[in-house]
Amino acid sequence: MWEAETYDVLFSEMNGTGNLMDFLDEPFPDVGTYEDFHTIDWLREKSRDTDRHRKITTKSKESYWELIKSLLDAWSGWVVMLLIGMLTGTLAGVIDLAVDWMTDLKEGVCLSALYYSREQCCWTSNETTFEDRDKCPQWQKWAELMTGHSEGAGAYVLNYFLYVLWALLFSFLAVSLVRVFAPYACGSGIPEIKTILSGFIIRGYLGKWTLLIKTVTLVLAVSSGLSLGKEGPLVHVACCCGNLFCSLFSKYSKNEGKRREVLSAAAAAGVSVAFGAPIGGVLFSLEEVSYYFPLKTLWRSFFAALVAAFTLRAINPFGNSRLVLFYVEYHTPWYMAELVPFILLGVFGGLWGALFIRGNIAWCRRRKTTLLGKYPVLEVIVITGITAVLAFPNPYTRRSTSELISELFNDCGALESSQLCDYVNNPNMSRPVDDIPDRPAGPGVYSALWQLALALIFKIVITIFTFGMKIPSGLFIPSMAVGAIAGRIVGIAVEQMAYHHHDWIIFKNWCRPGADCVTPGLYAMVGAAACLGGVTRMTVSLVVIMFELTGGLEYIVPLMAAAVTSKWVADAFGKEGIYESHIQLNGYPYLDVRDEFTHRTLATDVMRPRRSEPPLAVLTQDSTTVEDVETLIKDTDYNGFPVVVSRESERLIGFVQRRELTVAIKTARQKQDGVVSSSVVYFTEDNPQVAEACDPQPLKLRRILNLSPFTVTDHTPMETVVDIFRKLGLRQCLVTRSGRLLGIITKKDVLRHMAQMMNQDPESIMFN
Amino acid sequence: MWEAETYDVLFSEMNGTGNLMDFLDEPFPDVGTYEDFHTIDWLREKSRDTDRHRKITTKSKESYWELIKSLLDAWSGWVVMLLIGMLTGTLAGVIDLAVDWMTDLKEGVCLSALYYSREQCCWTSNETTFEDRDKCPQWQKWAELMTGHSEGAGAYVLNYFLYVLWALLFSFLAVSLVRVFAPYACGSGIPEIKTILSGFIIRGYLGKWTLLIKTVTLVLAVSSGLSLGKEGPLVHVACCCGNLFCSLFSKYSKNEGKRREVLSAAAAAGVSVAFGAPIGGVLFSLEEVSYYFPLKTLWRSFFAALVAAFTLRAINPFGNSRLVLFYVEYHTPWYMAELVPFILLGVFGGLWGALFIRGNIAWCRRRKTTLLGKYPVLEVIVITGITAVLAFPNPYTRRSTSELISELFNDCGALESSQLCDYVNNPNMSRPVDDIPDRPAGPGVYSALWQLALALIFKIVITIFTFGMKIPSGLFIPSMAVGAIAGRIVGIAVEQMAYHHHDWIIFKNWCRPGADCVTPGLYAMVGAAACLGGVTRMTVSLVVIMFELTGGLEYIVPLMAAAVTSKWVADAFGKEGIYESHIQLNGYPYLDVRDEFTHRTLATDVMRPRRSEPPLAVLTQDSTTVEDVETLIKDTDYNGFPVVVSRESERLIGFVQRRELTVAIKTARQKQDGVVSSSVVYFTEDNPQVAEACDPQPLKLRRILNLSPFTVTDHTPMETVVDIFRKLGLRQCLVTRSGRLLGIITKKDVLRHMAQMMNQDPESIMFN
Repeated sequence: MWEAETYDVLFSEMNGTGNLMDFLDEPFPDVGTYEDFHTIDWLREKSRDTDRHRKITTKSKESYWELIKSLLDAWSGWVVMLLIGMLTGTLAGVIDLAVDWMTDLKEGVCLSALYYSREQCCWTSNETTFEDRDKCPQWQKWAELMTGHSEGAGAYVLNYFLYVLWALLFSFLAVSLVRVFAPYACGSGIPEIKTILSGFIIRGYLGKWTLLIKTVTLVLAVSSGLSLGKEGPLVHVACCCGNLFCSLFSKYSKNEGKRREVLSAAAAAGVSVAFGAPIGGVLFSLEEVSYYFPLKTLWRSFFAALVAAFTLRAINPFGNSRLVLFYVEYHTPWYMAELVPFILLGVFGGLWGALFIRGNIAWCRRRKTTLLGKYPVLEVIVITGITAVLAFPNPYTRRSTSELISELFNDCGALESSQLCDYVNNPNMSRPVDDIPDRPAGPGVYSALWQLALALIFKIVITIFTFGMKIPSGLFIPSMAVGAIAGRIVGIAVEQMAYHHHDWIIFKNWCRPGADCVTPGLYAMVGAAACLGGVTRMTVSLVVIMFELTGGLEYIVPLMAAAVTSKWVADAFGKEGIYESHIQLNGYPYLDVRDEFTHRTLATDVMRPRRSEPPLAVLTQDSTTVEDVETLIKDTDYNGFPVVVSRESERLIGFVQRRELTVAIKTARQKQDGVVSSSVVYFTEDNPQVAEACDPQPLKLRRILNLSPFTVTDHTPMETVVDIFRKLGLRQCLVTRSGRLLGIITKKDVLRHMAQMMNQDPESIMFN
Repeated sequence: MWEAETYDVLFSEMNGTGNLMDFLDEPFPDVGTYEDFHTIDWLREKSRDTDRHRKITTKSKESYWELIKSLLDAWSGWVVMLLIGMLTGTLAGVIDLAVDWMTDLKEGVCLSALYYSREQCCWTSNETTFEDRDKCPQWQKWAELMTGHSEGAGAYVLNYFLYVLWALLFSFLAVSLVRVFAPYACGSGIPEIKTILSGFIIRGYLGKWTLLIKTVTLVLAVSSGLSLGKEGPLVHVACCCGNLFCSLFSKYSKNEGKRREVLSAAAAAGVSVAFGAPIGGVLFSLEEVSYYFPLKTLWRSFFAALVAAFTLRAINPFGNSRLVLFYVEYHTPWYMAELVPFILLGVFGGLWGALFIRGNIAWCRRRKTTLLGKYPVLEVIVITGITAVLAFPNPYTRRSTSELISELFNDCGALESSQLCDYVNNPNMSRPVDDIPDRPAGPGVYSALWQLALALIFKIVITIFTFGMKIPSGLFIPSMAVGAIAGRIVGIAVEQMAYHHHDWIIFKNWCRPGADCVTPGLYAMVGAAACLGGVTRMTVSLVVIMFELTGGLEYIVPLMAAAVTSKWVADAFGKEGIYESHIQLNGYPYLDVRDEFTHRTLATDVMRPRRSEPPLAVLTQDSTTVEDVETLIKDTDYNGFPVVVSRESERLIGFVQRRELTVAIKTARQKQDGVVSSSVVYFTEDNPQVAEACDPQPLKLRRILNLSPFTVTDHTPMETVVDIFRKLGLRQCLVTRSGRLLGIITKKDVLRHMAQMMNQDPESIMFN
């Protein structure tokens, strides 16, 4: 908890300890780092940083050079944020451009410039409506290019075939790259990032290879047309960038606590570019991802998120000077009565969230336990095949999901040529205006409704099987798509009802004939928010992200209503969001800040050793020999050992880390004469009195002794213990009664106990 | 730390303790409440709430009625938020309307309806420009009404005189009401709210009287034309509303921890209506005011802030469907080169912040220590007199400060008639457009510049003396006014430079003749943000509030640049913002989350007793008599006493609160036979063995013993101790070495030590 090195400096100043152990002044190799799949000690990391800071401050008064160095150190945080923001923004822009191009590649190619996507290809043609643009001659579908015919059954089949082929090629490439080069690049990455930010070490998860491969395979996976999004993985990519730049500054690379501050900010930058919502990104990082979020990090996250957003805007991947494809502006206010459909959408979102989590977790568990998990490449190929075959015939699933969402969110303008906007126009309407009154739906709208309904079922089913495969896959976009489709369908229904029955009581007050009263696009947006909320259980950040998309406070109430309903409905089926469920599925040691532990157990019920177990492995302050210690290290795999005055009194004096003990004894055996197996190891300040007459040289190890181990009494309620573990980020805590050491509680014991309590019947806990 | 009652239930179930002490099952009177000006124990409050929750959950399975009660309990949080939002929004609307009317009352009156402000009075006249509106006949200045002449020296003097008279009347009323009815209603209230939220008890600070009087006197104080704003006090008003509604639900009224969650949300609602910025409000509460901010509170704060904002909008006090007077829309982007003046404004803001804090604190200290503090009414009258006399001649200080800011923020449209927009128009410009090219300044602009410069000096000086007087006074608006004036002056200067010298290299790239390149209003906004940031040291919330005013991501970069510069410059002169400075000045026990404690002291250096002091007052587990305890209670004023096994072994077994000890002994003496002065008090589970033969009946007090007191070892670095106090919200912590009790550290000891370390020379600390 409190690092030995720090102590040493302090002690040598205070006591002037002897030259016997001078070699220990050199830092132990690897001291202060953690092993893979271990938990960090937040208090210790914090102490180490304070110590480092203190050294720099002291030195800065010595010379101008040191002063400059200290200023550089103070600025390094901002520099890292700037770099993260710039790289994240650039990568997001590149990914957007590449995805656009490759998604269109499945259907055709731009003859004037092969590297243009369809939209870029047709920019030059000055047609204003989408229909005319579709006819732009530079853009050719594969069938047209190969056979010269753009119409007819043959062309359709050829296009279909090539579409599926490209999709299979992309997804095969993606899964192969992941398998061969960076297994950690799969999935959305958010569950793992949450775990890492809470203080767990997963080496390589945020490494350079992961960054590179995840970026490339993300493009491939999204382009393959699978039902997945780039938003979650972008957070992972941003965190990889953060980790990359951490290595430039020893302040961050050598301190796991400081590193996590940077990663929290990087996560904010990731969401910022994913949705074009810098404030929403910061709140997402605060609400959903981060564990330790001091105010300084808030400010820096905000900076990183803004830099990322502006970098992305400078790249301008969508050609609309906007950060996102689905930026919308609505012109009509909403009415109180509309809250009913909005809340219904919230219920739908909650149900979808619960269904998705259950289905997906069940499928992922099956993947982990059955043969299915043995053939990840085949699984990806099969799912891609099914997706592509089913997606091509339906225009709403054929295109990329973000384009679909963008269209569903849009309000129908007068010039809109999309099928969804095929309303029967009033011939009296003279010129295109923004504020078009409600109109009766044309045949296009009705056929669009059918196609949307089919697309909805398809998306719901396929997404459950897609998320969790061995390719980068986010679920923001698929979830939003499900909600947007459902919302648009409801929106059109309400609109038509209001148009045809504007004399009904509920419509009478707010919907006069000839007025623009219902915006189906808003319903799509509300539905998207509800579904996303149901799956992730985000609240504030969700609403703020959506607010940043629409840019008007006006629509916050519908969004909030839907988000709250969706969260409540989904919570009724299970408290955990998809990320927490995946964390549980993978068994990461994640202590959720939000879970409230309300059981009446005490520390004594959780601590090891239990009654039936052998006593706790402890060291005594001045009677253990080197051999005893070595045996203890060999026979146990604990991370550390408490040191007591004597086995009889069991009074605790400190805690020593296994790693440091091993290194210290090894070093002493090599470098220090007279240290043999029968040497006594002592942790007191003075030589042990009994050792005077003894033959072998005793070994003083007080320097590696943590003199301030964290203790609680055996009567401390577990609720308080959980709180302490969470807030102070402990690895372990010793349990005492009247000053006697009784046992130890580790983070894993706490997690195990919490899981146990959750599964038990509450009644049985009350009286056991 | 852990409440006795909770324990009792648990223990009686487990041990079935005897009937001897059954009367103790009735809760002690006043147990669980705190005395005025004491600190709460967060862990204990949390435990109590969990316990309450547990009871309700268990009961809810018993009957439908209990189930409904448990659902009501679960919903009460949202109901409280809804009520707070609605009341805060309503009060803000009423305050806005009343201030508008009363501010105008100083100059004249509306003949058609006495309760109309000038703007409302002149709405009916259809004139479109401000100049024409000024002539609306229904509105009459006092001189016109009384003498019939609206022009001339006589009328001016009469108007002047009445203006000063009204101002004096308003401020006299305000200060008298505060003095007589609610002394806590003065000031901005934010320092005290910060302290309260950190866990301090100030009874009556958020009471009904304070709410009523603060609302009324706030209107009077703002209308009197003093250099103060309503934003800070609105936060106080909102918190009073929060406290009021807490009393409706025992969940909140009986738990000081839960109450503080509600107050945090109320603070967000207050800022939300003050600036029309709900997200900014939540972030303000998170960044600036709150201490304990769990995620659940974030979501609820957001809800409260939104409800408040929408209630305010429904009242529509400004008649523009906006939440704030100074909502702005700019049409021109900003250019890289403009960052130079923006950063200069940031420097100005930082300097102003440092100057203001130093000046104001010096003046407030003088008020506390000299005769000045004895005459608060006179002080207010004198300052009001000076303010009114100096303000009337200058049109920019005569009007209300928020109107001034609104005008300074505004971009000059084609129809603007204000003196600030008196540019020389190009005769070729045919019709009013939004995007007016830069024009040369006319004589009106130059005279406005002079008047603004004078107003700037006046505001700077007078604000230092105004803030801290015994009337409600916020400093957001005066700070913003100082910044807006400076910003507008700089903006106009840059604009004219760019117009006249558009061939200079710096202007060449971005400012062609005939283009609209500089928006002086944006400079005003940047200046306002810089000054506000310098005074309060807000960062994220400041930028977000400003972002919500402009509604465009576009202008976040200038705002951030200015906010960061201003914070850095101001921090160079002193780390504390105005609120922290006032907290220090008043000596509140506030443990700032942001102060980093980086000194190398240990728990042993801070704990009491010191070496020279008498030993710690402790109780033994089975050898203290009732008389001993009573003497100890009489002789000391500690909040509680550690209980040890025996004075020899000094092994700690628990901690007992003074308050509970007093009550328990008093009750036992009254109700329990055989308890006399020589009775032994024991805290063990079984009767003490020695007591068998003794005559008097022993008194068992295990139930009030906290068996899980918080301990640290004497070698724990103070840095860690400070962290523990902050994060767990402790009141005290016991210090042990090898299981022996050495001493105690209270929150006050920690604060005292931190203050001591701050003032010492860092070098001397390193080696002492």
